[in-house]
Amino acid sequence: MTEDSTGKKIDGQIVGKTGVCTPKGFLAAGVHAGFKKGKSQKDLALIVSEIPCHGAAVYTQNVVKGAPILVTQDHLKEGWCQAVICNSGNANTCTPHGIVVAENTCQRLAEVLDIPGQYVAVASTGVIGVPLPEAPFHQGIPHLVQQLSYEGGTSAAEAIMTTDRMPKEVSKTVSLGKGTVMIGGMAKGSGMIHPNMATMLCFLTTDASVEAGVLEKCLRDVVTDTFNQVSVDGDTSTNDMVLIMANGASGGNPIEEGTSDYEAFHQGLLEACRELAEMIAGDGEGSTKLITCHVQGASSKESANALAKSVISSSLVKTAIFGADANWGRVLCALGYSGEKANLELATVSFSSEKGSVKVCECGATYPFSEEKARAILEEHRIEILVELQEGPGNGVAWGCDLTYDYVRINGDYRS
Amino acid sequence: MTEDSTGKKIDGQIVGKTGVCTPKGFLAAGVHAGFKKGKSQKDLALIVSEIPCHGAAVYTQNVVKGAPILVTQDHLKEGWCQAVICNSGNANTCTPHGIVVAENTCQRLAEVLDIPGQYVAVASTGVIGVPLPEAPFHQGIPHLVQQLSYEGGTSAAEAIMTTDRMPKEVSKTVSLGKGTVMIGGMAKGSGMIHPNMATMLCFLTTDASVEAGVLEKCLRDVVTDTFNQVSVDGDTSTNDMVLIMANGASGGNPIEEGTSDYEAFHQGLLEACRELAEMIAGDGEGSTKLITCHVQGASSKESANALAKSVISSSLVKTAIFGADANWGRVLCALGYSGEKANLELATVSFSSEKGSVKVCECGATYPFSEEKARAILEEHRIEILVELQEGPGNGVAWGCDLTYDYVRINGDYRS
Repeated sequence: MTEDSTGKKIDGQIVGKTGVCTPKGFLAAGVHAGFKKGKSQKDLALIVSEIPCHGAAVYTQNVVKGAPILVTQDHLKEGWCQAVICNSGNANTCTPHGIVVAENTCQRLAEVLDIPGQYVAVASTGVIGVPLPEAPFHQGIPHLVQQLSYEGGTSAAEAIMTTDRMPKEVSKTVSLGKGTVMIGGMAKGSGMIHPNMATMLCFLTTDASVEAGVLEKCLRDVVTDTFNQVSVDGDTSTNDMVLIMANGASGGNPIEEGTSDYEAFHQGLLEACRELAEMIAGDGEGSTKLITCHVQGASSKESANALAKSVISSSLVKTAIFGADANWGRVLCALGYSGEKANLELATVSFSSEKGSVKVCECGATYPFSEEKARAILEEHRIEILVELQEGPGNGVAWGCDLTYDYVRINGDYRS
Repeated sequence: MTEDSTGKKIDGQIVGKTGVCTPKGFLAAGVHAGFKKGKSQKDLALIVSEIPCHGAAVYTQNVVKGAPILVTQDHLKEGWCQAVICNSGNANTCTPHGIVVAENTCQRLAEVLDIPGQYVAVASTGVIGVPLPEAPFHQGIPHLVQQLSYEGGTSAAEAIMTTDRMPKEVSKTVSLGKGTVMIGGMAKGSGMIHPNMATMLCFLTTDASVEAGVLEKCLRDVVTDTFNQVSVDGDTSTNDMVLIMANGASGGNPIEEGTSDYEAFHQGLLEACRELAEMIAGDGEGSTKLITCHVQGASSKESANALAKSVISSSLVKTAIFGADANWGRVLCALGYSGEKANLELATVSFSSEKGSVKVCECGATYPFSEEKARAILEEHRIEILVELQEGPGNGVAWGCDLTYDYVRINGDYRS
């Protein structure tokens, strides 16, 4: 939840419009349909717009793509979308009839909602290689539609969780030249289930009016600088998807590229996705810390992003942060093998957190620092690594988490 | 030790010529000089040829290179080498006067050995960013030279260890058209020390006569298919080095490219490096298992190597193997994000070990298998993952290890 959220806490419960329901005209729900064993576990989520939306999505770059990815790609090819259904507990991937099951799911929902089947996007997350049963959809879909409400954002966000420790929602108000629009979102990742696979899913809604082509360009730009800069364990899932629906219910004119409204919308989407990216990294499996690496002064933004991502992806950096060890040599080493050109003999490295900041490396060599202070800083939960270079104007950022005993436990001992 | 080693065990001690000392005319030694705290810990190794050798080496691709790498690159530029000195406990990297210290070390040794300073190669492994003290070299080098012997291979192999659990030596006999030559070698990795960095070092010797250019080409080829196919944690050290010295003491003619002798020598070097690569992977930090992934039927050898390396580098595969979980979906997923083109809908995946073999995936989908049998197979210490594709004639292999609680402990808790 961000400060922009319209959700209110009453007796510890969030009520009101949250996440994907904050823009006008979006309803959502989450129910237990039977994909997960525990009856208290929600496992089927739905987001519906009252009117058809322009839709765009970006998908996993893994050449193994889950069946729902292929079906959603096909359905979105005209740039329209009105509903997204997502189950957790089974990824519907690497199974013989996955496409048929995903297609049937869309058609079944379309009938109940009385919209074209092509307007439905579908996603799945969970076990790979096990056929996705259709039975839970039979009863689940009517129940899900019945539960649809303007206050269902959190419920839907809960229903896409796997090993996530908390639902992830965001909302942003964007001021345009005339009036305001809202952007809402929910995400999951990197959770897993038996036998499991880490998947990142994100669904975004907006009541802005944005045509599909413009929406897709904006989304691609934003994903490059946010979700693509997150790494929990370097494994790219078969089912990753970030989807956005724009229903225009705010009543404004279509937002076009090259305008100040576009800039404002882009910025709002960037902030929304950045917050969700941080939530995903901070909720990485078994993690105890969110690690943010800022690289400044690289030759370009792309280079800065690549350098930052190399740092937060390093197992040696991740374990050092877990151990609160100010091991800057590992940071320099990870910068060095990133594949990016940068004169690291001019690099400065600092660690910071709520407890303060400490410079540990200057001109590529050790800089005297208090081990005690460094440890106190690194024992906090939100750690920032700042790398300053002298190559050019490029700044970048990436998010990751520490590598812990629990990561090994979750991913190694799951079935024992 | 391989079956080819000439070392003999007497009362549990290896005596005789082992590792780098197996080819004619090579002596070695390892002593405690004072880079490590424990007085029983050897930390300075030396390999010397009685006569000047053709020398070649390949180095880390990290843009941050340790000072010894830079000095050795310079010394080897004429293609000659007669001695290699290597300390463990300090990497001599990211420090202000590293180059001077590395150069002084070579000159000091050259004086004692009465050879040109340019004939000395130097390597270091250990802590990064802490100045390498010169004092231990003052007393250490004379003592080291005094200890030189034809039976010093194991002693030298011990002196380059950091967190390695065992010294790593190999020797191979190669039959040429006329007579035989020997190839010997020792390696370390991926060990670390306070505050640490994983480094892979390998020193090879041969009494074959091979000119530097031919030697370098052969070494590069072999390293591509062996050490470059090993991953413990994906981090590329600043100090990696593989160096070979050929002294021609076997008396044969120079081995030239395009001859059957070259093929035989190449094959011997490949086998020596493959065995050392396996030892490094199997001794990966905190590891309990050696994981070998064979990919067959890829479009080319390069593609097969890349696919195999993607599998053994996956944290999710590594934790699954640690947990003896036949999670083939993670193997398919890692193949999918390797960046290589391959139709994974035709992929077959099997796991095997001493306990047998089990097919778990056919045509990219689940293949019925006994979970019990799969678990028994995966509980062994040497695990093979076989991936069969139908793209072409390319076969490849890569070596890694499981990801365990101990990896996190070694790399996160070292200083606490």
